[in-house]
Amino acid sequence: MRFFSDNAAPACPEVIAALSAANTQDTAYDGDALSQALDARFSELFGTHVAVLWVPTGTAANCLALASLCPPYGGVVCHREAHIQMDEAGAPEFYTHGAKLLLADGPGAKLTPESIAEVIDPIKDGVHWVQPHAISITNATEYGLAYSPDEVAAIGKLARDRKLGLHMDGARFANALVHLGCKPAELTWRAGVDALSFGFVKNGGMGAEALVYFRSDQIEAARIRRKRAGHLQSKGRYLAAQLLAMLDNDVWLRNAAAANAGAAALGAAAADRLVYPVEANEVFVRLSQDEAVSLRDQGFDFYDWGVGEARFVVAWDQDASAVRPLADALTALSVPA
Amino acid sequence: MRFFSDNAAPACPEVIAALSAANTQDTAYDGDALSQALDARFSELFGTHVAVLWVPTGTAANCLALASLCPPYGGVVCHREAHIQMDEAGAPEFYTHGAKLLLADGPGAKLTPESIAEVIDPIKDGVHWVQPHAISITNATEYGLAYSPDEVAAIGKLARDRKLGLHMDGARFANALVHLGCKPAELTWRAGVDALSFGFVKNGGMGAEALVYFRSDQIEAARIRRKRAGHLQSKGRYLAAQLLAMLDNDVWLRNAAAANAGAAALGAAAADRLVYPVEANEVFVRLSQDEAVSLRDQGFDFYDWGVGEARFVVAWDQDASAVRPLADALTALSVPA
Amino acid sequence: MRFFSDNAAPACPEVIAALSAANTQDTAYDGDALSQALDARFSELFGTHVAVLWVPTGTAANCLALASLCPPYGGVVCHREAHIQMDEAGAPEFYTHGAKLLLADGPGAKLTPESIAEVIDPIKDGVHWVQPHAISITNATEYGLAYSPDEVAAIGKLARDRKLGLHMDGARFANALVHLGCKPAELTWRAGVDALSFGFVKNGGMGAEALVYFRSDQIEAARIRRKRAGHLQSKGRYLAAQLLAMLDNDVWLRNAAAANAGAAALGAAAADRLVYPVEANEVFVRLSQDEAVSLRDQGFDFYDWGVGEARFVVAWDQDASAVRPLADALTALSVPA
Amino acid sequence: MRFFSDNAAPACPEVIAALSAANTQDTAYDGDALSQALDARFSELFGTHVAVLWVPTGTAANCLALASLCPPYGGVVCHREAHIQMDEAGAPEFYTHGAKLLLADGPGAKLTPESIAEVIDPIKDGVHWVQPHAISITNATEYGLAYSPDEVAAIGKLARDRKLGLHMDGARFANALVHLGCKPAELTWRAGVDALSFGFVKNGGMGAEALVYFRSDQIEAARIRRKRAGHLQSKGRYLAAQLLAMLDNDVWLRNAAAANAGAAALGAAAADRLVYPVEANEVFVRLSQDEAVSLRDQGFDFYDWGVGEARFVVAWDQDASAVRPLADALTALSVPA
Repeated sequence: MRFFSDNAAPACPEVIAALSAANTQDTAYDGDALSQALDARFSELFGTHVAVLWVPTGTAANCLALASLCPPYGGVVCHREAHIQMDEAGAPEFYTHGAKLLLADGPGAKLTPESIAEVIDPIKDGVHWVQPHAISITNATEYGLAYSPDEVAAIGKLARDRKLGLHMDGARFANALVHLGCKPAELTWRAGVDALSFGFVKNGGMGAEALVYFRSDQIEAARIRRKRAGHLQSKGRYLAAQLLAMLDNDVWLRNAAAANAGAAALGAAAADRLVYPVEANEVFVRLSQDEAVSLRDQGFDFYDWGVGEARFVVAWDQDASAVRPLADALTALSVPA
Repeated sequence: MRFFSDNAAPACPEVIAALSAANTQDTAYDGDALSQALDARFSELFGTHVAVLWVPTGTAANCLALASLCPPYGGVVCHREAHIQMDEAGAPEFYTHGAKLLLADGPGAKLTPESIAEVIDPIKDGVHWVQPHAISITNATEYGLAYSPDEVAAIGKLARDRKLGLHMDGARFANALVHLGCKPAELTWRAGVDALSFGFVKNGGMGAEALVYFRSDQIEAARIRRKRAGHLQSKGRYLAAQLLAMLDNDVWLRNAAAANAGAAALGAAAADRLVYPVEANEVFVRLSQDEAVSLRDQGFDFYDWGVGEARFVVAWDQDASAVRPLADALTALSVPA
Repeated sequence: MRFFSDNAAPACPEVIAALSAANTQDTAYDGDALSQALDARFSELFGTHVAVLWVPTGTAANCLALASLCPPYGGVVCHREAHIQMDEAGAPEFYTHGAKLLLADGPGAKLTPESIAEVIDPIKDGVHWVQPHAISITNATEYGLAYSPDEVAAIGKLARDRKLGLHMDGARFANALVHLGCKPAELTWRAGVDALSFGFVKNGGMGAEALVYFRSDQIEAARIRRKRAGHLQSKGRYLAAQLLAMLDNDVWLRNAAAANAGAAALGAAAADRLVYPVEANEVFVRLSQDEAVSLRDQGFDFYDWGVGEARFVVAWDQDASAVRPLADALTALSVPA
Repeated sequence: MRFFSDNAAPACPEVIAALSAANTQDTAYDGDALSQALDARFSELFGTHVAVLWVPTGTAANCLALASLCPPYGGVVCHREAHIQMDEAGAPEFYTHGAKLLLADGPGAKLTPESIAEVIDPIKDGVHWVQPHAISITNATEYGLAYSPDEVAAIGKLARDRKLGLHMDGARFANALVHLGCKPAELTWRAGVDALSFGFVKNGGMGAEALVYFRSDQIEAARIRRKRAGHLQSKGRYLAAQLLAMLDNDVWLRNAAAANAGAAALGAAAADRLVYPVEANEVFVRLSQDEAVSLRDQGFDFYDWGVGEARFVVAWDQDASAVRPLADALTALSVPA
């Protein structure tokens, strides 16, 4: 049973249905009715005017956002274990034309105003040193922790004070939101976020993410950069259809809630060996090598995550019955033989 | 009725079916069974070992190929009206990190060894002048003309003699092939092509193109560049599924034949006003402003293409009955009232 | 005798003297007294506040200016035979991160509002097409022609109307100015120029050019880009010293006048075979192959410039006596044997 | 008295004399006799065939070298406090088109095979993670420590085993060499170095460094990149003249020995407060805030270097008498009042 990654899950049925429904002729690129509907639909969701670009991957969303917020000669503060630093093959450097990621520390891949200040305060003013232009945070973090609205707002305040842009990598935005029980607005623009990579693929989408701009001054260049990166799909309506289908009837929240519930069940079963509290759909547990072997022998797939730790990810389609065997196996590990 | 662009057409039913069929869990990125099957399936098609990357757009395919064939400080010879020069928003410069497109001339956006030599022969050797590293041709061209295997081979010979890479933008490769009635091999690697952007989207696909490498030395870096550009979709199996579905039962050839037939019917109806012979699925006709207005008043959508000329594109789903009204209208234009 | 290039000439004695005079310790980079004096000195010369960066080459000056005026996804209109297009090895693309040069035509490598409009008017609005952001003109041009203040102002008006930046490559700015007999202000900021590559090296300098910004919003990023390109020399005072030495006592004007006079003498001697009027220090003449051989046999070095034409450049140090032999030889060519 | 930086020192008299001597006409760029003499002269020095490019700054030398050794999508291992990471404004990212610096640790800004392996061993194979392509070490390091030939060779072996290029930033190569008393060959190519930034400016030059390639496969592209970066000075002979003048009669060794001797004298005076042993021309001492104020009150200029530490740099022109006052002042600090 797979607990490798939420990327391994299929697309949810609403997405498949939407693709079929969208399968008529329409204007190419993003001139079609579905693409044109995105701004209004997301603006309604966020309670403010936003501009939205569909893109196929979180990497594209993240890096287009960073290119909007940081010039080629600038720096972006992010966590040392942020996806943009660790897992995107240098895409941020490609899209920004060489901006530098300035690495901050903190448990659970979570930044604070203090940890950010530790990175940027020592940077002397002057042309010899890469100056920070933006901050990027991931919510939920790479360790499945959610920034609360207040935590984001504290970073948003720092960003505003230092004249830095603020990007949120929301590959698991839905999971964070569901955990927090707050409104999308509270977690984003009200807290100072300028651009959000709003993830859908891990949450039941097929190949569409939403790059959401809360600042109108950046959207025009972002549209150009999307084209220039080869991301303006000629039949973009199929991406728009996915996003709209997942917003309709709160499918995105339903899916995230399901994944979170599965993770919570695992977390409960492994309460004594959790590395971090379970707040989204990822569970990090301490696991000896023997225990890891035992679980794999029982047919559970997962990643080792550093020495003596493992990561289990629950996807939108893994309900209680799918998670139960692993939960039982984790419980059994903790019982002395 | 739409004759704007083959991008406006829907995806063909086989593609939609394939997406549903692929909608199970599998390994992320391109580790899934479908993605892993591509090399073998395309190798069979081309009669030689090839490596294939799925990408969502022709621009991504073209520019990844150019980045493989040309260093940042080099030049790529292409036609002055090539898509990579005219319609990709500087994507080649982005992907190659600033290589220069060296523009050649020729009717119908078609290059010859002579027109290429006219561009590169005057370039002096030395560090002051951008040196050519590659040639890019479009087959069928932006004016719907097909390069024959011999024509490609002549350019391929020049490329080899001058130690230049050869890229083929095959956004309408199927249409050219069907017109020529030749084998994929003849039109590509046997004629000296190093990399092919093998188009599927205009031909009935949804959002997947195949970037085909005939040289094994470039594939590793190309895979990295695909990731770095944000084009490695986490659920890549849905792109692979599209490509395989269109190769199965020669759907790609069927679709191209249908579009070509429609264009041929239009060409026959407008024989006395053709700017170029109709060889693929595009028809360029001389049209006065009044005639253009008249056609649009009758409900036909198309692009003006320069002064006094118009472009009509027939898509895979426009059969004889869909094309007939426009053919009749074009015929009627030519009849003195 | 050399008529290859003004780059072959030595540095003028004032420059050598200034280097010796500057040879004491001082603050590194551009914190020294000489570098700090540049803004004021050039502001006085131009009659307005300017910011000045020393750089070692015209290519560096040009490309830093272009990077200031054009984003990576934009275009710069220049003449098809402009130095930035022809002779800088793709440096503009490197510095701008891939902006596209949009090539205009016109005799003598000279642009007009009309020839510029011919390039930019057909560019449709939209993300598929590289949009123009700047214009670059060369004064004197690559064929030794001077734009008058009115001619520059006409282009400046177009630039302002279209919201384009205006850069002047002034590798031979002094030669143009001396020919025109106008003020530096008239030929630059009063005519709408935003940034000037003010050439000194061809005019008797050793290794220092001045990049002059007439707009204060661009200087900060330009300083950073200079450093980032490795052009912030740690002992920058030696570059500042050169510039100041050549402004002192109008050495720059004296040198340019000398070179222009030599070229004028050659032009007079070859009046019946001039390709362009001689306005600066370059002379382009029609020359048969036999005539070219004959001149070279007599010891004159020069470049062929296209078929049947040749370029002779006179440097600051070539006075009447140095030029006389070539003038005589040119005269003799025209006399029937 | 200045102990800020060796960049504040003047050029040595031999350099000034050489500039005057070179002040005749010659072929432009690097076609002149002096530039053409460099390969042979440096090949003699290194006892093997090398290719040498003059450039004006260490940043240009370093970053051209890195661009030779690392593709845009690759990584370069360097020390967390390396000049290329800390003080070059992102120039490595600019020149390499976005390669990532992979930061290693170690006292005194010195790398070891072990500290390098700690960085690269955890990098998984695959397209998601930036793969290392090169290592860059600084000799003498940013803390004035010299890598011995054996230490370099150990890193060179690792580089070879892992198929990584090896670059040495030798801004203070002369100082390291003089300290070690070894041959240039031992410290470079014999130890596995592929490219060396051979510093002259800090050591008495004016504005010329030597970028030395020990591998012939990289020189052609490096020459193009130099031009493309605007670093091919049209009167390059003045840079070549500086380099040759400093090699003649071992001026470079004499200058470095003088600076090292001065630093040694300071080190002896501050032996009980040294942060690192004094091996080149930099002295790092523990200094309370009061002590720093006291020294500055006495007229000594220097940089604070972290909390409670200060850096003193001795230049080639600061002989025993110039250094004595500071040595005395440092000694006096240590004496209980």
